[in-house]
Amino acid sequence: MAIIVQKFGGTSVADAEKIRRATERVIDAVKKGYHVVVVASARGKQTDQLVADALELNPDPPKREMDQLLSTGEQQSVSLFAMALDAAGYAAISLTGGQIRMLTDSAHTKARIISVDADRIHKQLEKGKIVIIAGFQGINEEEDITTLGRGGSDTTAVALAAVLGAEQCEIYTDVDGVYTTDPRIYPNAAKMQQISYDEMLELASLGAGVMHSRAIEFGKKYDVKIHVRSSSEETEGTIITHEVPQMEGVVVSGATIQKDLAKLSLVGVGNKPGNAARVFAQMANAKVVVNDIMQTEVSPDKANLSFTISASDLKAAREAVEKIGKDIECDSVFIRDDIAEVSVVGVGMRNHYGVAEAMFTALAKAQVNIDSITTSEIRISCIVDEDQAEKALKAVCDAFELDRPARHRAK
Amino acid sequence: MAIIVQKFGGTSVADAEKIRRATERVIDAVKKGYHVVVVASARGKQTDQLVADALELNPDPPKREMDQLLSTGEQQSVSLFAMALDAAGYAAISLTGGQIRMLTDSAHTKARIISVDADRIHKQLEKGKIVIIAGFQGINEEEDITTLGRGGSDTTAVALAAVLGAEQCEIYTDVDGVYTTDPRIYPNAAKMQQISYDEMLELASLGAGVMHSRAIEFGKKYDVKIHVRSSSEETEGTIITHEVPQMEGVVVSGATIQKDLAKLSLVGVGNKPGNAARVFAQMANAKVVVNDIMQTEVSPDKANLSFTISASDLKAAREAVEKIGKDIECDSVFIRDDIAEVSVVGVGMRNHYGVAEAMFTALAKAQVNIDSITTSEIRISCIVDEDQAEKALKAVCDAFELDRPARHRAK
Repeated sequence: MAIIVQKFGGTSVADAEKIRRATERVIDAVKKGYHVVVVASARGKQTDQLVADALELNPDPPKREMDQLLSTGEQQSVSLFAMALDAAGYAAISLTGGQIRMLTDSAHTKARIISVDADRIHKQLEKGKIVIIAGFQGINEEEDITTLGRGGSDTTAVALAAVLGAEQCEIYTDVDGVYTTDPRIYPNAAKMQQISYDEMLELASLGAGVMHSRAIEFGKKYDVKIHVRSSSEETEGTIITHEVPQMEGVVVSGATIQKDLAKLSLVGVGNKPGNAARVFAQMANAKVVVNDIMQTEVSPDKANLSFTISASDLKAAREAVEKIGKDIECDSVFIRDDIAEVSVVGVGMRNHYGVAEAMFTALAKAQVNIDSITTSEIRISCIVDEDQAEKALKAVCDAFELDRPARHRAK
Repeated sequence: MAIIVQKFGGTSVADAEKIRRATERVIDAVKKGYHVVVVASARGKQTDQLVADALELNPDPPKREMDQLLSTGEQQSVSLFAMALDAAGYAAISLTGGQIRMLTDSAHTKARIISVDADRIHKQLEKGKIVIIAGFQGINEEEDITTLGRGGSDTTAVALAAVLGAEQCEIYTDVDGVYTTDPRIYPNAAKMQQISYDEMLELASLGAGVMHSRAIEFGKKYDVKIHVRSSSEETEGTIITHEVPQMEGVVVSGATIQKDLAKLSLVGVGNKPGNAARVFAQMANAKVVVNDIMQTEVSPDKANLSFTISASDLKAAREAVEKIGKDIECDSVFIRDDIAEVSVVGVGMRNHYGVAEAMFTALAKAQVNIDSITTSEIRISCIVDEDQAEKALKAVCDAFELDRPARHRAK
């Protein structure tokens, strides 16, 4: 019997009524003949409330204890979800991360999955039960509870779909699919029927909130078909899958805007082997996740090294970069936290010229100044002043016709 | 270094301010040179809220899922408690029932402890940490979460004190000790300096809310000195310990009133071997806890068999007793749920005559009708009409001078 994994986010299980509505999706799948594994997040604002409770007692709570605290939110959701299914006449069992031995490393609050014991899940499915699994959480080798970071329930869901060989991993959310860009900023944004893992990865890492990027990585690595869809409407959503030939015709699939960033620049770094490595070793040490790295030579023996990070890591990063700046004797350290990054993404870029030019032209016409530029194989990003970010996104969306489904664009 | 176990109930950890006040008790003990193990209950009305959330989805939620749900309350308390200690500069670690391998049977919602792995706790204490343990919860062999029933945190605390060889188990609560009777009903009730396990067991099983009876059983079995005291005042409370000689001089230590009872009577049961056993096997099967059993012969071959149960078990008990009543061909089944039990307790009864007579005389003077009577070695209980229960308690308290400390009584 085929297995399907269904993941419900916090808004989809926020109260009794919403939990009941979510169980209808599960029951539909059971009636279609699937074995169903549900992954649920914490109810609504539960996690925020627990964080507030913690901060009231300790402005800098130990991360191990935060994980112990926050993991209760998902545990509550899954037991309630199982009770709701039981009330509807369907046998269900809830399991925590520990109970399925979702083994992770010990990086509390942003742990990575090492392995999952699928046996317990299979056993319950074979008994005819719907299995409800607490997302977002795992345990390390000492049996300490860990969490995968915000949005980690997506990762749980896709990882389980991979391990269980599920036919599909459905991500139920409060939007009905993946859009070319954020409709709150660009109201004409179009819904995509499908998107490749690589594009979705770029979009997710750029702050498009629909899915957690580690979840997409898992999906790509283990070939899990992911279906992002609405928990309140029965429409088809967006399928995230491997690249298919027609995707190549689309030059730009989507555009994003990323705020809450900071850029750290080391000016006049002696351009000798090992300096960059020392900088990023220091960042890793301070547990700062580095987004983009840009380095340019400014003289035969000196370079400017910049990189962006999440604004929430700025405190740790600032201390680390000021220390390493002295150690490697750079001329100065320069930090900006009033920036945003506007990006376009598309696998079609691999075979098309002129995308960068079109983007820079659109920004110039809109009078947006570009602080710095960074690119990947399927992405071009420009760092701009934060207060020009929305104007910049609109200009780019208009230029690439992101208000239309891909098949209706001029180029 | 000596170990002390401190248990804080739900009201003592209800909010940030109360948690901080509770940590002061812990820090005091640390300063006195103790290794401290804290056991905490769920915050304030948390458990009630979770029960309400569950019932909103399912009027009869599966017990396994209830345990999965309710255990989150304690998990939240202990992580918050550890954060509060960290903020005060004291290293602490919170551990769930699963993390200390508090192994129980599988009787969900009222599981019994089988074993505890003390090693993990000792290791953390040796590292200089204060160890905060989630009360009320354990795991069974399948790693399902179990709970010990309401008040189970007391049991957790005393069991840990036993296993760890603690010098004392302090039970912090919202009253400042154990009183001769419920001061809400008999305002002149006197606080006891000490009380024997046996007396406390009788009082607890009769509904004196201060402590869970299984906790006292553990204390008696493993010789744990229990200190019931106030979390808001620094006064000495009541020590529960082994019988000491001066206790024998006290005829009646305390009196209780127990409501929310039901009495089931099988009238005209054929008085042959095995009938009583079949009745109570059926009750055990229906998971009904039986309190007192009374049987009297009414003819050479017939007997009346009565027993009391908690009113909350009445539905299950009624079904079971009606079925077994037919099977054993008794004349009729008679159920009362408008009763209460008034009891006096005292180890001194073993060596004194006239206690029963004094009690019945007091009730007669107060015009209270006695439905039935049951006694143990150190207890006399009378079942009375529920609406006469408080009058009955007052009469008994006056008769035995329970408004005075034991050493100041006439007899």
